[in-house]
Amino acid sequence: MATLKVPATVPAVAEDCEQLRKAFQGWGTNEALIISILGHRDAAQRRAIRRAYADTYGEELLRSITDEISGDFERAVILWTLDPAERDAVLANEAARKWQPGNRVLVEIACTRGSAQLFAARQAYHERFKRSLEEDIAAHVTGDFRKTSSRSLSAKMMTFGHNLLVPLVSAYRYDGPEVNTRLAHSEAKILHEKIHHKAYSDDEIIRILTTRSKAQLLATFNYYNDTFGHPINKDLKADPKDEYLKTLRAIIRCFTCPERYFEKVVRQAIAGLGTDENSLTRVITTRAEVDLKLIKEAYQKRNSVPLERAVAGDTSGDYESMLLALLGQE
Amino acid sequence: MATLKVPATVPAVAEDCEQLRKAFQGWGTNEALIISILGHRDAAQRRAIRRAYADTYGEELLRSITDEISGDFERAVILWTLDPAERDAVLANEAARKWQPGNRVLVEIACTRGSAQLFAARQAYHERFKRSLEEDIAAHVTGDFRKTSSRSLSAKMMTFGHNLLVPLVSAYRYDGPEVNTRLAHSEAKILHEKIHHKAYSDDEIIRILTTRSKAQLLATFNYYNDTFGHPINKDLKADPKDEYLKTLRAIIRCFTCPERYFEKVVRQAIAGLGTDENSLTRVITTRAEVDLKLIKEAYQKRNSVPLERAVAGDTSGDYESMLLALLGQE
Repeated sequence: MATLKVPATVPAVAEDCEQLRKAFQGWGTNEALIISILGHRDAAQRRAIRRAYADTYGEELLRSITDEISGDFERAVILWTLDPAERDAVLANEAARKWQPGNRVLVEIACTRGSAQLFAARQAYHERFKRSLEEDIAAHVTGDFRKTSSRSLSAKMMTFGHNLLVPLVSAYRYDGPEVNTRLAHSEAKILHEKIHHKAYSDDEIIRILTTRSKAQLLATFNYYNDTFGHPINKDLKADPKDEYLKTLRAIIRCFTCPERYFEKVVRQAIAGLGTDENSLTRVITTRAEVDLKLIKEAYQKRNSVPLERAVAGDTSGDYESMLLALLGQE
Repeated sequence: MATLKVPATVPAVAEDCEQLRKAFQGWGTNEALIISILGHRDAAQRRAIRRAYADTYGEELLRSITDEISGDFERAVILWTLDPAERDAVLANEAARKWQPGNRVLVEIACTRGSAQLFAARQAYHERFKRSLEEDIAAHVTGDFRKTSSRSLSAKMMTFGHNLLVPLVSAYRYDGPEVNTRLAHSEAKILHEKIHHKAYSDDEIIRILTTRSKAQLLATFNYYNDTFGHPINKDLKADPKDEYLKTLRAIIRCFTCPERYFEKVVRQAIAGLGTDENSLTRVITTRAEVDLKLIKEAYQKRNSVPLERAVAGDTSGDYESMLLALLGQE
């Protein structure tokens, strides 16, 4: 499902380091060389390169990259070069610090990563920021909105931060295939009842979404669909612009069909005037080794245009080349 | 700080297994032999014995133990023989299933274990119960009390389960020594203000207690004491019988002085008519390799009686011998 293309014969790590060092030195930077190396190495290979580079030149590879390139290209290369867990920690930290209700990054990280990966991101967060992810979310997401004068807005934002996002990222969900059918039935009914009474921020909805295993949730959503005649997400569209409901729908989509969730993020990043480079870079760097092939298929199906062509149309220069490399373009 | 006594020369694992097998077989069980082996091996040695025993005899050691002994002695030997993370998972599962407001086991596990140990317990929970600890707490602790007719009781129990215990066990606190002094000051003030207004279940109190690192919390509590003239726990004694306030105080004591927290659990288990064997067994088996020596010192200081003598006075037979072995009695 990955799009990343690693050459059949990969040069020795020392050779990669030497080439990268050359790309950084002299008059001007050799961006194409950077892309041809880092854009075609998997996570383990990039990790080995970072280690060897630091040992050989006494300088962090990421430091050299930051010194030599800039803008969207820099962000794409840096995010890509990071280990997946470190990258998630960096993205989650940005999202927690600059959080606003439309920001889906925390939902994405909490709900599309496996339990072990999410925990690895929390460990990397400790390592890098000397704090825990959940304490930053609890402090920032609640905090920023406490300052607003509107009492109802403030209460709603509390629901986001403390009640929803913190348990979502703190969960260590069971990730086995076992499903309790009786439980799926009873919890589908609870969800339906709460949604019917528009009690969207009810503790029970949050409890079910933030603690049950993915397999269990899929069974619950399927039973919901079978019994009540439409998917749960349709029932959560009562007010299509409400950011809290949008967040609940995003959570459910991340569980049920992550590739379609990501297709939509990419589509919205490309659509309209101007491009949302941060979202585009985030999806491509975080999914290139996971399921970007499925996201590309979903994109082509939904937009009748290959994702590579859409990206090429909306970006340019080295940034474009880097994204296309990760998209697996020959 | 451990009380466990491991002999200077430990027999080979195969020899321990053979002796244990002998202890289980024939007419009657040789309880003294079981204690003399398992009561004097550390976690790594017990793990090796369990593995070798299963390999050699095609039966789990814990199964053989359960078949041969019973009652409080069985419970003590089984809990002790388990790996610390497994033991915590078993204790947490019992506590979640049979939870009532006076039960402190979940608080104890969440607040006296290091971050990595708490996470190991959550992993062991997956392994053993095919569910997550937080989903069981969220479902049981909220669930049982939803059935009560009293609406206010129900709301209060929600606060326990969903708002307090779930984030408490889900936290992966940063465990480095770094302290943010400014933050300690501002959060001590927040705590004081909320407590002053009797807003004990306010989101801010819960956020601070469930997300901040231990080092940070100690700084906050110290500043609280310095600024407001008495320890935070004194201010949380407004209604000494309120179980929610008692739980908050237990959380704070687990962070600030775990040995005194455990001393009190042991003291109450022994005091009065009848003994609370479960609590006694739990503290001794979970702390014998950690800080039982400090707990013994605290007990002697508070009760003017050595803990061994108090235990010997309140228990008997093989159960007594097992506890005394773990307490380090020669």
